[in-house]
Amino acid sequence: MPTESKVDVLVLGAGPAGLMCAQGLKRAGVNVRIIDKRPKKVAAGQADGVQPRTIEVLQSYGLAERLLREGNQMHMVAFYNPSPNGGIERTGRTADITAPSARYPFEVTLHQGAIEAIFLDSMRELGLEVDRPIIPTALELSHDENELRDPQSYPVKVTLKHLDFGSEGQDDTEIVYAKFVVGADGAHSWVRKTLGIIMDGEQTDYIWGVVDLIPSTNFPDIRNRCAIHSSNGSCMIIPREGDKVRLYIQLSDKDVVVDKATGRVDKEKTKVGPEELLEVARKSFSPFTIEKAGEIDWWTIYLIGQRVAQKFSVHERVFIAGDACHTHSPKAGQGMNASMNDTHNLIWKMTYVLRGWADISLLRTYEFERRKYAQDLIAFDKKFSALFSGKPRTEECQDGVSHEAFLEAFQTFGAFSCGIGIHYSPSSIPSMPNITELKHQSLTSHQTVGMRILPHVFVRAADARPFEIQDLLPANTKWKLVVFVGDIGPGKIKQIERVAKLADDLGKSTGLLKRYEDGVFEILTICATVKECLNYTDLPEVLRPHWSR
Amino acid sequence: MPTESKVDVLVLGAGPAGLMCAQGLKRAGVNVRIIDKRPKKVAAGQADGVQPRTIEVLQSYGLAERLLREGNQMHMVAFYNPSPNGGIERTGRTADITAPSARYPFEVTLHQGAIEAIFLDSMRELGLEVDRPIIPTALELSHDENELRDPQSYPVKVTLKHLDFGSEGQDDTEIVYAKFVVGADGAHSWVRKTLGIIMDGEQTDYIWGVVDLIPSTNFPDIRNRCAIHSSNGSCMIIPREGDKVRLYIQLSDKDVVVDKATGRVDKEKTKVGPEELLEVARKSFSPFTIEKAGEIDWWTIYLIGQRVAQKFSVHERVFIAGDACHTHSPKAGQGMNASMNDTHNLIWKMTYVLRGWADISLLRTYEFERRKYAQDLIAFDKKFSALFSGKPRTEECQDGVSHEAFLEAFQTFGAFSCGIGIHYSPSSIPSMPNITELKHQSLTSHQTVGMRILPHVFVRAADARPFEIQDLLPANTKWKLVVFVGDIGPGKIKQIERVAKLADDLGKSTGLLKRYEDGVFEILTICATVKECLNYTDLPEVLRPHWSR
Repeated sequence: MPTESKVDVLVLGAGPAGLMCAQGLKRAGVNVRIIDKRPKKVAAGQADGVQPRTIEVLQSYGLAERLLREGNQMHMVAFYNPSPNGGIERTGRTADITAPSARYPFEVTLHQGAIEAIFLDSMRELGLEVDRPIIPTALELSHDENELRDPQSYPVKVTLKHLDFGSEGQDDTEIVYAKFVVGADGAHSWVRKTLGIIMDGEQTDYIWGVVDLIPSTNFPDIRNRCAIHSSNGSCMIIPREGDKVRLYIQLSDKDVVVDKATGRVDKEKTKVGPEELLEVARKSFSPFTIEKAGEIDWWTIYLIGQRVAQKFSVHERVFIAGDACHTHSPKAGQGMNASMNDTHNLIWKMTYVLRGWADISLLRTYEFERRKYAQDLIAFDKKFSALFSGKPRTEECQDGVSHEAFLEAFQTFGAFSCGIGIHYSPSSIPSMPNITELKHQSLTSHQTVGMRILPHVFVRAADARPFEIQDLLPANTKWKLVVFVGDIGPGKIKQIERVAKLADDLGKSTGLLKRYEDGVFEILTICATVKECLNYTDLPEVLRPHWSR
Repeated sequence: MPTESKVDVLVLGAGPAGLMCAQGLKRAGVNVRIIDKRPKKVAAGQADGVQPRTIEVLQSYGLAERLLREGNQMHMVAFYNPSPNGGIERTGRTADITAPSARYPFEVTLHQGAIEAIFLDSMRELGLEVDRPIIPTALELSHDENELRDPQSYPVKVTLKHLDFGSEGQDDTEIVYAKFVVGADGAHSWVRKTLGIIMDGEQTDYIWGVVDLIPSTNFPDIRNRCAIHSSNGSCMIIPREGDKVRLYIQLSDKDVVVDKATGRVDKEKTKVGPEELLEVARKSFSPFTIEKAGEIDWWTIYLIGQRVAQKFSVHERVFIAGDACHTHSPKAGQGMNASMNDTHNLIWKMTYVLRGWADISLLRTYEFERRKYAQDLIAFDKKFSALFSGKPRTEECQDGVSHEAFLEAFQTFGAFSCGIGIHYSPSSIPSMPNITELKHQSLTSHQTVGMRILPHVFVRAADARPFEIQDLLPANTKWKLVVFVGDIGPGKIKQIERVAKLADDLGKSTGLLKRYEDGVFEILTICATVKECLNYTDLPEVLRPHWSR
């Protein structure tokens, strides 16, 4: 008999989406288990770019410090185009991140294995390890509507197979009953296929090679992100941790054999290896030289596929996230970021539903918000990939992509591609009927409802210490009540009276705070009074549960 | 027979001075041993204020991050004086740190045990533990002049006694032969007494009590540093980590019995305990209330002694550091800072002498620089203590200390007391004859020779990433060669030529760099060119040994 167990959330796949999900749920006190088919974590290559908004999200879990310590930072982007003298020349440099409100105005590059290690180590501190190597072999979802509606039921039955069990008659299968399942099992997602979810979209004709290496070069922008448009093909440079650099190299059909049936690169028949990729890059770099100093770290060849899943969940009990529900080109550096932000969106919602703080229907907003985002991402990726893979404009090729057109696209997409621009549409969250109205945009002139809170440094009233507001509102699965009380300094009698009335309303037995259990809300009060004139003790106590708030 | 061993440096005492010394030497690869008589590190109380300059120094060893994470920050200071209505009232608030160039414009408070833990943990990572409980029982210094002049000799013989050895005939004594000994063994230093070094200075009449507690209070500045001058005595508030607060409370002669012979507080006969101290504080706080919430963490009573040792070393083979060579009042928060900075001064000098990079006479500059500083500190402390311990000015007491006089003193001493103002006088360092002239102040308009390098953010040429220059010049016991090359952007032909000539001179076989072994110098080149126009590859290679420099 296989062993049987119950778990609140079973996460399938320990890539960035799955790890983000598991660490966040564990941190929130949820009974969570995470499995992966690989015996070990990724060691090199794969995705590596962390966008400004993702850094903010990692910071909200206390994970950005290590990322910033270990990673490389990209602050500048340089553009190279065909020179009238042959070869390439620099046509411009600009800030890599142009979104004005980015708290971290740069991208961080670090190989996926190191990013996964940040999650794995923080999970280990919380007492959670990835179970591996394990694959799911069957998934059954209850059809009982009452069961599906009850967040405390276990409507998902998953059969697991342990890959490392010996052959001595040991039973390698196991049954897990879960309240929720998250399929974060990659572009070839078993969960998605098992659920019969269709991917919309297509394969493009763009073929790219990727090489990670330590270069020896006289190219002056080797430590900047570079978009090289040469008459010999395009190339993108992504500087990495240490002295490493990643090159994205455009390939032509004749270099690569594509399997017509699968649409994938046929690695058997394709005679292109890392040396050949570097040789193609060298032609783009001319008149600059580039050689490898030491071994090539990692390489691959891929076709750009741009697809979004039709559904992101079944009955809000089984979800798919990350590459399992959207794939796009890696050059815009979006894949891993979108994946981590998918499950960041899911963590608090699942936690609230499991705690009984929110109705299970809250979980519908996951697909509503993240699928729309994935579609926007594909639309962005299509434009960007076409511009980047297209021929550069030269005297001979007047309808090619000009530097100006590319730069304009780069800057137009800036806010979106750095993640800062994510804007969720109004969606009624029916679980907390008295605070559902998220549409009160008229009440706030600078903060857009549906976007992340704007980073801003405030000075704490009690001790004049500056704090970034994002750090005072961490991803700790509590509702945040931020009260802007205006100027309550000496002489502001009217405003002081208004604040006192608000405090009375909030604190009375029928008030917002008393209607929910302790610990549901974290209160933060923000005053517009200059620090020298404000006594934190002047505020009503309900608005300052502790001197630090 | 006692065991015998040799060590390059033996550090006696594992307080802040000794720990700073040991971790710095270990980091530099020096064969160092550190012993302490206490079986365990300090758990609470003691010194707790870390000044802005000391934070910079800790950062230069990579130790500031944890201090900043664990410690409390003081950004504002509030002044209270007698109110015409009785009790006290606030007469002003100002920034706690007014020195304009402080990289960290605040003080950090954290109990001494936690500060020591930062050193202990970083030493452990480097493979060094404190040997304890051990006391020195004899110290002999060779009289042989040749031996004393030879940095590779072992002229100091120290006998140690292990306090935790059983009585079963085990030999609890041990002989250590050291090249150098550092006595960081506190105000009652055994090393100082053994060497017969006299302390200059005197005991004052000011008696103070100290209490660490978590308060329950309606005092609006409880989380700010406060100087309270009341008609019932003075009180200083130092907020601490968590919700803790330290109160310094002025006591009168009648509260405390002083032992005439030793000049110390007679704890036996003195009937003052923590409750009595709090009762005295309550009178100063009126009309505000203050009670303890929970137990009192730590308390003490002390007389202010202001003394400096006549000598800081004997033959530059045995040194004293920290409280062993200077004592002053704790309220200005200088003691621990001065102690750590004493040995910070000694670390690189000892290391260079041991490596043969500098003549042994370099060590004379330790006393020259640090004793002068200790004397300045006492002069400062005398003025500050007198102002703070004096009666406040009131209608009845017209010759008391006014708020204006105290504030002026506070701000005048600001640069000095935060450590930023430390300015070492020219002292020929004879060991590196070609770069001894430290007096070229005329060549640098903003950087004062003899002061720490001014913090400033520079943008790295290769990747446009901003860096604090202090972080590019860490305390890693290497000479730093910082070359300011001016603007070498497009068209600056003359300056480019000058830089090329300098590079040729530096790099040739008789040039500065080739005359010393590899690794003696770390080169950092600073350009005044705007980042968009500079290619790091345009600099001569000798000025950019790596793209990151």
